[in-house]
Amino acid sequence: MLERDRERLLDAARRMNRSPLGSGALAGTTFDLDRDATAKELGFDAPTRNSLDAVADRDYLVEAVAALANCAIHLSRIGEELVLWSSQEFGFVQMSDAFTTGSSMMPQKKNPDMAELVRGKSGRVVGDLVALLVMLKGLPLTYNRDMQEDKPPTFDAFDTVDACLHILAGSLASARFDGARMRAALREGFVDATELADYLTAKGVPFRDAHHVAGRLVRAALAQGKTLAELPLEELRRESPAFEDDVYAALDPETAVERRKLLGGPARARVEAEIRDLRARLAQRGYDVQMIARELGAQV
Amino acid sequence: MLERDRERLLDAARRMNRSPLGSGALAGTTFDLDRDATAKELGFDAPTRNSLDAVADRDYLVEAVAALANCAIHLSRIGEELVLWSSQEFGFVQMSDAFTTGSSMMPQKKNPDMAELVRGKSGRVVGDLVALLVMLKGLPLTYNRDMQEDKPPTFDAFDTVDACLHILAGSLASARFDGARMRAALREGFVDATELADYLTAKGVPFRDAHHVAGRLVRAALAQGKTLAELPLEELRRESPAFEDDVYAALDPETAVERRKLLGGPARARVEAEIRDLRARLAQRGYDVQMIARELGAQV
Amino acid sequence: MLERDRERLLDAARRMNRSPLGSGALAGTTFDLDRDATAKELGFDAPTRNSLDAVADRDYLVEAVAALANCAIHLSRIGEELVLWSSQEFGFVQMSDAFTTGSSMMPQKKNPDMAELVRGKSGRVVGDLVALLVMLKGLPLTYNRDMQEDKPPTFDAFDTVDACLHILAGSLASARFDGARMRAALREGFVDATELADYLTAKGVPFRDAHHVAGRLVRAALAQGKTLAELPLEELRRESPAFEDDVYAALDPETAVERRKLLGGPARARVEAEIRDLRARLAQRGYDVQMIARELGAQV
Amino acid sequence: MLERDRERLLDAARRMNRSPLGSGALAGTTFDLDRDATAKELGFDAPTRNSLDAVADRDYLVEAVAALANCAIHLSRIGEELVLWSSQEFGFVQMSDAFTTGSSMMPQKKNPDMAELVRGKSGRVVGDLVALLVMLKGLPLTYNRDMQEDKPPTFDAFDTVDACLHILAGSLASARFDGARMRAALREGFVDATELADYLTAKGVPFRDAHHVAGRLVRAALAQGKTLAELPLEELRRESPAFEDDVYAALDPETAVERRKLLGGPARARVEAEIRDLRARLAQRGYDVQMIARELGAQV
Repeated sequence: MLERDRERLLDAARRMNRSPLGSGALAGTTFDLDRDATAKELGFDAPTRNSLDAVADRDYLVEAVAALANCAIHLSRIGEELVLWSSQEFGFVQMSDAFTTGSSMMPQKKNPDMAELVRGKSGRVVGDLVALLVMLKGLPLTYNRDMQEDKPPTFDAFDTVDACLHILAGSLASARFDGARMRAALREGFVDATELADYLTAKGVPFRDAHHVAGRLVRAALAQGKTLAELPLEELRRESPAFEDDVYAALDPETAVERRKLLGGPARARVEAEIRDLRARLAQRGYDVQMIARELGAQV
Repeated sequence: MLERDRERLLDAARRMNRSPLGSGALAGTTFDLDRDATAKELGFDAPTRNSLDAVADRDYLVEAVAALANCAIHLSRIGEELVLWSSQEFGFVQMSDAFTTGSSMMPQKKNPDMAELVRGKSGRVVGDLVALLVMLKGLPLTYNRDMQEDKPPTFDAFDTVDACLHILAGSLASARFDGARMRAALREGFVDATELADYLTAKGVPFRDAHHVAGRLVRAALAQGKTLAELPLEELRRESPAFEDDVYAALDPETAVERRKLLGGPARARVEAEIRDLRARLAQRGYDVQMIARELGAQV
Repeated sequence: MLERDRERLLDAARRMNRSPLGSGALAGTTFDLDRDATAKELGFDAPTRNSLDAVADRDYLVEAVAALANCAIHLSRIGEELVLWSSQEFGFVQMSDAFTTGSSMMPQKKNPDMAELVRGKSGRVVGDLVALLVMLKGLPLTYNRDMQEDKPPTFDAFDTVDACLHILAGSLASARFDGARMRAALREGFVDATELADYLTAKGVPFRDAHHVAGRLVRAALAQGKTLAELPLEELRRESPAFEDDVYAALDPETAVERRKLLGGPARARVEAEIRDLRARLAQRGYDVQMIARELGAQV
Repeated sequence: MLERDRERLLDAARRMNRSPLGSGALAGTTFDLDRDATAKELGFDAPTRNSLDAVADRDYLVEAVAALANCAIHLSRIGEELVLWSSQEFGFVQMSDAFTTGSSMMPQKKNPDMAELVRGKSGRVVGDLVALLVMLKGLPLTYNRDMQEDKPPTFDAFDTVDACLHILAGSLASARFDGARMRAALREGFVDATELADYLTAKGVPFRDAHHVAGRLVRAALAQGKTLAELPLEELRRESPAFEDDVYAALDPETAVERRKLLGGPARARVEAEIRDLRARLAQRGYDVQMIARELGAQV
């Protein structure tokens, strides 16, 4: 998500980085200016190509703030995930005190206030985008004084997303995940029913039958207050003779994860390769991942 | 428009003016509080009726900011009207120097910058409304820290509409309308074709025929570079014998206006009665219209 | 929440219910129409008071759709609550099959798809509101053809909120709440720490001290994997001699609820009175609550 | 403007064009799929790189609809320009009957209804963008049923912009511009005051003095109801002896235009070069400009 947000902002920067110098108030200038040279000198990629357009439009701000709104919505979703996962009922993650609010009376309580703020601040950025679009709507060409209103929403959108990125980076750097609870949740949810069906299919049972067997066994396990892996082999075999001793290994969530080893899948080797790849890209862009991690750690 | 905006804000104020005191963090309080008495004492109309709701909702801010957005859009339209009417091509109105921007080189030029700013600032208020709605969307009950973000858009919406109202009040108080040009524009546009058809209908000509006669005469006038009123009676009579000498009075725009004398119409007596009525209502609400006008006049 | 939404829609209806008949294309009509009589006859409360305004404005649609957006956001929050509460981790509620999506392989799984759809559909309604505001922004007076675009967002907003209300009504009517799990969650979260502090305060312990005692006892209970109510009296008394045998009753969540008996609070009698009051209001408005419940029950 | 809109849509298409096949419901698949091969075969540039992300996100739709909103706002501005320019007061342009609405009674009247509709329809597209952003806001990862609501706003945004582009293309293809009126408007507005000051500066008069002289002469011309070019040379020389006979050529608007010959300026050669360049680019992309023009011509 964030890689694409970054690409969008770079695309916006590229399209924005044109020098309007020489466009005058709208009709260009009579000065004998070298627009290519002044553009380069001022750090632009090139000059704009139409003086009326250079003066009239703010679509490059709409594009940038739209990319920021997309990003802010992404951050609202990561924020929601942290809020959910740190609730008492999920209990999958806990952020450090710097990113949560406690109570001296209920010291165990860590409200994920920073993650909630990030979630809420997405509203500002969408509001900023709408402010720009409404401001531009229906304006005749070229410059109109209305366009002076382009700055507050643009600056606010950049500042807000910048702040949210820092907050979430720190929140995640300080997060401690509770592997045991996550593992337990996996077992409760019968997510291994799919594995059971896959196991039977691999043994030659037609998929439709395998699917039905899995359903019946989940029902049986539910009735006994057990997980699928807690059902004895003989009970499994009563539903299908294809079951053998190796079924219990197949039901293990780690096995299930490792079997999903295609590009983009959750198998450990795949995920580690992706992380290495992302780190390499960050290094190429001049970021020292170790140092950033230390800094975030120090901050939390 | 503005009367309805005012009513909406009053409705919002009425719905908002409930005391949450006694709602605690969400589940009420164990203190033996007289909620009716404290509400009255604090200037509220009544206490809220549900502690969870009192803490969880911000719909009263959405309502108020939506009323402000409706108003800001109204102001953008009045702003547009002033921009249009003060253009060189229309030339119907000129605002004072305090509400326009000139140039020492083109001293006749008065850019309606304030009206353009009012038009543009409607974007902010719509953005503020969207910011609130997005912030609240999908929040579980009751209070979430996201809701801390309710204040910036709310305050900004009130401040922006307040500023726009002041700017437009001054712009209109300082506006000089060019009656001669407006009258001339009326003649150019053949708006009297309707009067011509009405005239014939009143003389007993079936509406369909009257309509066709009017169309043919407009075409004839166009071809000769004349207005309808500049066509001689004999030419009119060639199209319909129902025309008589009194047709020229009927074509006069002032006659046309005076004939539209129903409630809500433009006849002078109607408009004056409406103005008297509005002034009386303002006086009842404690506004001294004369004083306000003088103040705006002093300011311009 | 919904009561206020209803009031807003009624306010909008009241403001909208004016007859424009007699406004003509913009300047009124020359027909000798009785505008009061035709307004009454057509079911309007009164005629509009300005022909230009009657033709030019659509603020009444903005107001209605803003009220619907406020309502849709409310519904998104109730939807979120149902999604959260029906998750495996919370397990507080289960909606019927008509409002959830299952899987033959995981028969215990009931995805709260209808609640999610309601949550998502709030986007449409906010989008409809923005569509109207953007359409109107900066339009000169009076009618412009742009305004033909007022109908699709208005109709869509009404239809969407109508559908969402039906879905949520059915979802809630079919919901079975798991009191035991909710009770258990109450105990896990040390929400009774506040009760403990209140108990001590009532016994004359200064609030600040009571607060600290509560914090220390929560910490102690946490360390032993116990709830506060599971700590023996002698351990409590070691922190404060004010504790007596009646503390255990005070820690009971039901006691805590019953002690919050102010208007708006959760005490059973209060809540039942509010329900009676709401039912009476519904009956007054002509709704047969029993019949509606039966219908919803039949539908689920 | 439209070139940048096109680039943004191409960027969005590039980022969107990834195959999710092999992502399963969220955790990938155990099938031994060649994701690169299936992606190519299905016409995608590459496979997505994370199964959770592939299932969870709709940022590519937000990006595309944001690009469409940017474009719709551009079109609203071109629409506004056509509305303004075709008003009786401006009278700069007239579109054909296919893109205007007339009246048999006022045959000269051509309401620019199509341009107004394009202007108004920008509201829909901004509303569609907001609908998507609100729908996604705060959703936990990964897929939620809410996301089914991604299609109506996306399809509507594409269809609306597509229709608006066709309408404006036809409107512009059928537009007849009234050069004489535009030239006359140029003279009325004293836009040549800048040329006068430039002329003096070129003759060695300090810019500040030249500026003042121009201002005084505009005032004098205004007082006499003349244009600058109608003032006799001796009157000009009374303000500055630097004026010579060639000043009248310098005041000619065509000279003023030709002197602005930098890249992006309005000099005829520059504009023609830009048109040639755009045509060449269109040809390269496979569009036959002549044929399109003929088609649009036939349609109008």
